[in-house]
Amino acid sequence: MNEFELIARLTQSLPTNDSTILGPGDDCAILDLGLPDRWLLFKTDAIVEGVHFNATAPPDKIGHKALARCLSDFAAMAGAPTHALVTLALPTKFKVDFIEAIYGGMNALATRHRVAVVGGETTSNPERLLISVAVLGTVQQGKCPRRSAAKAGDAIFVTGELGGSRSRKHLDFQPRLAEAEWLANNFSIHAMMDISDGLAGDLPHILKASGVGAELLSDAVPVSRAAKLAARAQPSAKSSLEAALSDGEDFELLFTAASHDAVPLLDAWKERFPELRLSCIGKITAKKGLSIRDKKGLRPLTLHGYVHFTSCSA
Amino acid sequence: MNEFELIARLTQSLPTNDSTILGPGDDCAILDLGLPDRWLLFKTDAIVEGVHFNATAPPDKIGHKALARCLSDFAAMAGAPTHALVTLALPTKFKVDFIEAIYGGMNALATRHRVAVVGGETTSNPERLLISVAVLGTVQQGKCPRRSAAKAGDAIFVTGELGGSRSRKHLDFQPRLAEAEWLANNFSIHAMMDISDGLAGDLPHILKASGVGAELLSDAVPVSRAAKLAARAQPSAKSSLEAALSDGEDFELLFTAASHDAVPLLDAWKERFPELRLSCIGKITAKKGLSIRDKKGLRPLTLHGYVHFTSCSA
Repeated sequence: MNEFELIARLTQSLPTNDSTILGPGDDCAILDLGLPDRWLLFKTDAIVEGVHFNATAPPDKIGHKALARCLSDFAAMAGAPTHALVTLALPTKFKVDFIEAIYGGMNALATRHRVAVVGGETTSNPERLLISVAVLGTVQQGKCPRRSAAKAGDAIFVTGELGGSRSRKHLDFQPRLAEAEWLANNFSIHAMMDISDGLAGDLPHILKASGVGAELLSDAVPVSRAAKLAARAQPSAKSSLEAALSDGEDFELLFTAASHDAVPLLDAWKERFPELRLSCIGKITAKKGLSIRDKKGLRPLTLHGYVHFTSCSA
Repeated sequence: MNEFELIARLTQSLPTNDSTILGPGDDCAILDLGLPDRWLLFKTDAIVEGVHFNATAPPDKIGHKALARCLSDFAAMAGAPTHALVTLALPTKFKVDFIEAIYGGMNALATRHRVAVVGGETTSNPERLLISVAVLGTVQQGKCPRRSAAKAGDAIFVTGELGGSRSRKHLDFQPRLAEAEWLANNFSIHAMMDISDGLAGDLPHILKASGVGAELLSDAVPVSRAAKLAARAQPSAKSSLEAALSDGEDFELLFTAASHDAVPLLDAWKERFPELRLSCIGKITAKKGLSIRDKKGLRPLTLHGYVHFTSCSA
């Protein structure tokens, strides 16, 4: 049983209530507590030493990453994060300076996005450091793109460049909050999510939730320089395109919009965010399944994204 | 450096914003996002295998405890929890049935209090299970007792009985949500918190936040049957009164109210909650410090509550 199968089993029959607009299954939960015109967004995420970062990583980058992952989920819903709580599970031996530097990185990112850090908790986790962050925020009602809203014929877009994140970017990526807010305010964005487990792993979540399929154009997938360098250094390993499709931790936005919006959207984007690439990488199809078109024609995309868990028993 | 010293250092300069009414230092953070008449409460708490529960504990009780600890913090603010997110950090080997049973215990408690479980996350923590729960809810503006609101002359109250929780109660305690709501609706409650680290460890948080002291009456401290049995079984260990003052994980309410409210409050309580003891255990004093009065007179209370961390270096 992998992570997604376990989650499917655990979320089958969760308690709900009248103020829940959207429970598990998207980047954030959506709640209606009676705010005029706005919904609440609620999200939690954890990073673990040896899993999401190494003990030798710069502590300010560890703190940055812990909060940035949650903020990236807010970007995926075109939301505005407002408050965070931080749970530190500390190993038996730790250095206070190291923990303070983690907070330094987290606080700098929070300040940049006007997120208040309003508390949290410290506890023990003897073997390794674990940081869990819970974030609350808001989104304008009706302007919150969900994974389930992709429509056949939609153009598929991705921000930035993909692959090779583990060489550096996974520790200092910038959550695409301003970009997502601009997209939601200026265009009708159908489905959106952030890419955390690789394009080939994450796009199927949109396809499944929306009951559709997709065709990607292999030449249009924006391959990062890091992925190209890694493929050149080790030609026996996966190609740079495979890395762009399957490496985890890109934290770029993946979204769909009506095809007639594609050209105006790309033009307006270039003017507004000249330094961040936006690529139209394919289209949503009524026929289910994910395929990719290259010089040899259309073939099913069998690559998987990053899949968690190595061992568990039913 | 112990837990409280580390927290004091980390919370010195956290980012804040205009919608933050109260940041770190109380049972929940208080936020004003524009709801008419209500504030939001925001809280997170984690339990760790080998620290807060043993791997042999019944899994439904582990799940119960993981959520109940957060709900107890909502009780301490007289708030109503509405939504929870659950982070499961799973060891390398785990049984799916065990995890499902944990969710069973958590979901039963959530259902009882109309709390929706709206998602969360699974991740890896190779050596041990860790469960972090984030909870959101609301409280009526102006009816939220804070730790900083105790006044000299106040009577000090505690619900239930204290000490010996680790023999059983720490896994199946009931968060005092209904009791706290009733108290806030019917009396002017000054300061309130839940007792998680023992009365002698937690009351000083109220005293420090309010700039006051307290005198306890040793005969009035409600000692649990579990603490009495433990003291009888092992006479060389701490006395049952010491256990009631210093054992952790009672999760009872500790609060203060004006002394002229003490008798009407005790009378009304007995009628409303006949099965749950409420004890007036002493008074708040203008003179700082915590002391206890017994047959031999008044002496400083030097016992400490449960203090976390055994090792860390600056």
